[in-house]
Formats: sequence, C-alpha cells, structure tokens
Amino acid sequence: MRDSKTKLRFTKMQGIGNDYIYFSTFGQWINNPEALAVRLSDRHFGIGGDGVILVAPSKVADAQMKMYNRDGTEGKMCGNGIRCVGKFLYDHGMVNIKEKDEITIETLSGIKSLKAYTTDGEVKTLRVDMGKAILDPKLIPVDLSGDKVVDRRVTIGMQDYRITCVSMGNPHCVVFVDSDIDNINLEEIGPLFENDPIFPERVNTEFVTVLNEKTIKMRVWERGSGETWACGTGACAVAVAACENGFCKKGDDIKIKLKGGDLIINYTDETVYMTGNAEKVYEGEVEV
Amino acid sequence: MRDSKTKLRFTKMQGIGNDYIYFSTFGQWINNPEALAVRLSDRHFGIGGDGVILVAPSKVADAQMKMYNRDGTEGKMCGNGIRCVGKFLYDHGMVNIKEKDEITIETLSGIKSLKAYTTDGEVKTLRVDMGKAILDPKLIPVDLSGDKVVDRRVTIGMQDYRITCVSMGNPHCVVFVDSDIDNINLEEIGPLFENDPIFPERVNTEFVTVLNEKTIKMRVWERGSGETWACGTGACAVAVAACENGFCKKGDDIKIKLKGGDLIINYTDETVYMTGNAEKVYEGEVEV
Repeated sequence: MRDSKTKLRFTKMQGIGNDYIYFSTFGQWINNPEALAVRLSDRHFGIGGDGVILVAPSKVADAQMKMYNRDGTEGKMCGNGIRCVGKFLYDHGMVNIKEKDEITIETLSGIKSLKAYTTDGEVKTLRVDMGKAILDPKLIPVDLSGDKVVDRRVTIGMQDYRITCVSMGNPHCVVFVDSDIDNINLEEIGPLFENDPIFPERVNTEFVTVLNEKTIKMRVWERGSGETWACGTGACAVAVAACENGFCKKGDDIKIKLKGGDLIINYTDETVYMTGNAEKVYEGEVEV
Repeated sequence: MRDSKTKLRFTKMQGIGNDYIYFSTFGQWINNPEALAVRLSDRHFGIGGDGVILVAPSKVADAQMKMYNRDGTEGKMCGNGIRCVGKFLYDHGMVNIKEKDEITIETLSGIKSLKAYTTDGEVKTLRVDMGKAILDPKLIPVDLSGDKVVDRRVTIGMQDYRITCVSMGNPHCVVFVDSDIDNINLEEIGPLFENDPIFPERVNTEFVTVLNEKTIKMRVWERGSGETWACGTGACAVAVAACENGFCKKGDDIKIKLKGGDLIINYTDETVYMTGNAEKVYEGEVEV
C-alpha cells in the first residue's frame, strides 16, 4: 500500500545566515508542521534549515508567522525570520508596499511592524520594530537585586565577570570583554552562564567587544542551541547594554557584527529597531 | 547596473545521507560549476549539500557525471552520488530501463555501469559496478612490502594496529577492532593515519567491527574531509578487507552499516558491486 503524497511549494530564505524553509498556507494546507520541521530541517536527508516558518492568514495583521524549530517545538518569534516573512509577503504580491508603508505580522510575541527597503525594485533590507527593551531583573528574569543589572560583578564557574542583563522577550546576559572574542572558548563558558542559578529560565549570553561607539562585534551562546551565527534579539540586547554602559548613544544607528553578517540596531526609550537583510535563496517543491 | 540572472532547475538527492545538488546540462548551460559548488553547497547561505553534480551528455555512455566538492575541486567519482545520477536519468525519462537493463555513466574514473531496481514504479535502489579491488601495495599506494597488506602489524601514533589496505580507485586502510567503534576518538586517531608517512597519498581509514559473517559496522575518516556519514568506496574496501581476513566470504552479499545508512557489498575476483538507496528529496529553481 502506498500513501498518497502531497506536493508543497516552499521558499528557502535566509537573514544573516539564519535560514528557514518558508511555506505559505494561503493556498495550501500544511498538516502537522511540527513533524515536518523535524524531517525537513535535516541538512543531509531533508531540505536543511534552522526550522520551518509558515506564512499564514491573520485576522489582525497582514499575515501570521508560525515558526517551528529543528526539534519541532514552536518558537515565539525570530528577528531574522520575520524579515524574511516581510520579503516573502512583498515578493508574492501579498502586500503592496507603495500603498502601505508598514507591514504588520502577527506572532506569538504580539503583532510586529516592519518597514521594507527596496533596491532595483527588490526588497533586500527590512527594519523590524522589536518592541521595548526590558531592564527590570524580575521580568528578564535574573535573580539579582536593583532596578537594572548593568555592569554588575558576578561569579560564574569560579570566574568573575561584569554582566548587563536585558530582555527582548527572551533573557540575555551581555559580557563586554577587552580580549579577542574569537579566542573565547564558548563551548565551555556558554553552558556555565546558561545554567547558572541566577537565571531561573536559563539565558542567552553575548560576549562582545566595542570596536567604536557605533560598531560592536559579538558572539552568542543561545540557550538550548549553543553557539549560533545570528541572533536578532541578541544583537538588540547588545546595543541596549552598550548604551546602558555608556559605550554607545541612544538613538544612534549601531552596527552589530555577528558571525553571519551585520545588523543595525537603534535603541530608544520607546522601542528597539533592528535593520538587516532578507534573501530568497531558491524556490522548491517537496513531496510529503 | 544589475547583472542579468539565470534561473537554473535542480534536484536535491541523497544516498545514505551523502547529499548533492544535481543539475542536468542537457537543457541548460552551467557556467563555472566550481564557483557554483562553493556558493550553493553552503548550508546556511546556499542550497546546502556535499557538493554539486552535473548530469551531462556523453559520447560514450548514457550520460556523464561531473562532480564538484564543497571546496570547488573536481571529484573523480562518488559511489553514493552515481546511484543518484542513475535515478535522475530514470526519473527524467533519459533512459528506459525496461528496454535497457544497465545504465552506463561516464566518470573521471572510467565508465561505470548501474542496474536500477524499481518499487511501485519508482527507482529506489541501484547497484553500481565499482570495478576491481586493488590489493598491490605499490598501486594503493602504501609503503609496505609484499603482494598484499592484510592483517599487517604497524605502529601509528605510538599505538600498534593491524591493518588491511585496499584501493577502490582511492586508498583505504581498514582496521578491525573488537571494542565499540562508537567510542573511538576518530578526531584524534583519523589524522594520525591520514598523515602517516607509509601512505604517500594520504589515506581514508575505516574502523570496523564484524557483527557476523554478513554484517559489518563501520566508521570512516576521509582524507581531507574528516569523519563522514557515508563513504561508498570505503564500504567496498571494508567488505574486501573482511573477505581477505576470512571474516566474510567472497560472492556473499555483505551488509555494511554506516552512520548514514546501509550498503550491500558483493566482492568477487572480477569486481565489487555496491547496492544502496537513492532518493530525490525535492526539486528547486535557483537564480544564479
């Protein structure tokens, strides 16, 4: 007996190397996206990607973004992924940017608004309003006293560090270092931060070097994932932490250099803007 | 000024997890396949794969297989890749298996012949005639005396090993071990074999356990690549070595269990047959 198979159209897209498999559910039905994400994300036996993102109809925004990680768990939001959703909507004629300046996308972290920038009639760069940065330790959460955790001395894994903590919907711990961050043994130090008891929901840790007041280089250890080449919320947290420490200025465009590419972050009292690339790599059709 | 872009159709295929990006050059022109392989093999910014394989017209066979590794260098032959080329030809109606039992494919290692097995009208398994196994140390090459190197004691990296050497067009060194091969530190031991002066062209090393006289489990360290999940010529060399050592019998179907899946090897005095899967994962279109 043979199962009947369905052909699904997809688009492979990436933002600073954070790559997902995008399916529209406007014209096709996706059954069990969790299992699909596990199977298709495999880089040797499947399509390969950091997960699957569905671009779905929404009652409250231009579209809804539903994301599934490589392990099939549902993600709330992804800064690099949502830029690609914005480009996907534009490329497929699902929004008209000339008429409508902002694209709105419903996520599990609320409705996000995006602005698209076109070059030669193509959307190449998008700006995402990532929402207000949270500094209150109780809300991040980080188990330390005070209104903020900025340049605070802590001991993690028998070593002293000065940390700054920020939530961008998920908890971040930023460590400014003078040495070359390329030489940091992240495989060893990352898990010590991630699992330290001062972070009740674990933490994403950024090791950063301020190159000048508008340029910062970072590496990130993501909770549950290890070192990744690109973390949009991490780049936001780094810019916020740099301003809070007086290395950079609020309202300035700050370039954050990640392993996968650059993001421009602008931190104000009201919100944090993240600007970066979104690229369609190819279109495909897979039988499932 | 904008470069004009070309759309290319491709098929992503895999054999026991060894995955390549397949382009037909019967109906489309591929410019600079070396650069294309580097760019498209990238698993985050490109399509992702172990390389690019072109299925091209041939004057002496049904088609020609031209393979380009992830680093852009041209490969001679790949046992897992050629099975996918056979399926590609069948799926695209470029050969008619009912009329013609064997498919012939021109490679840089000569013309190879394949037999395809269909299930429910689909090619799922193929057998490749991999050619004669070479045991002469001078031809492998391995700098040891005698007609053959079978169960020979050598010292590599201050440790004693008993090795058997085989060429399947490329040099292999097979080491039978009693302990659990999953616990071997291949990252450390592999390079010691690869770079030992007794192997003037370096070597691919297989660490294997004989489970019974028709089943062998292996891990492989490929020269220039490190540990891989699948090595077709390595599986052939392992079956040959097992027969030469008396663990298995010539003419028997021997199942070789690799990390990426199973291959069936049949070693005779005339040739070595390798049978395994070939799967189309999806079809796509990329602008280059």
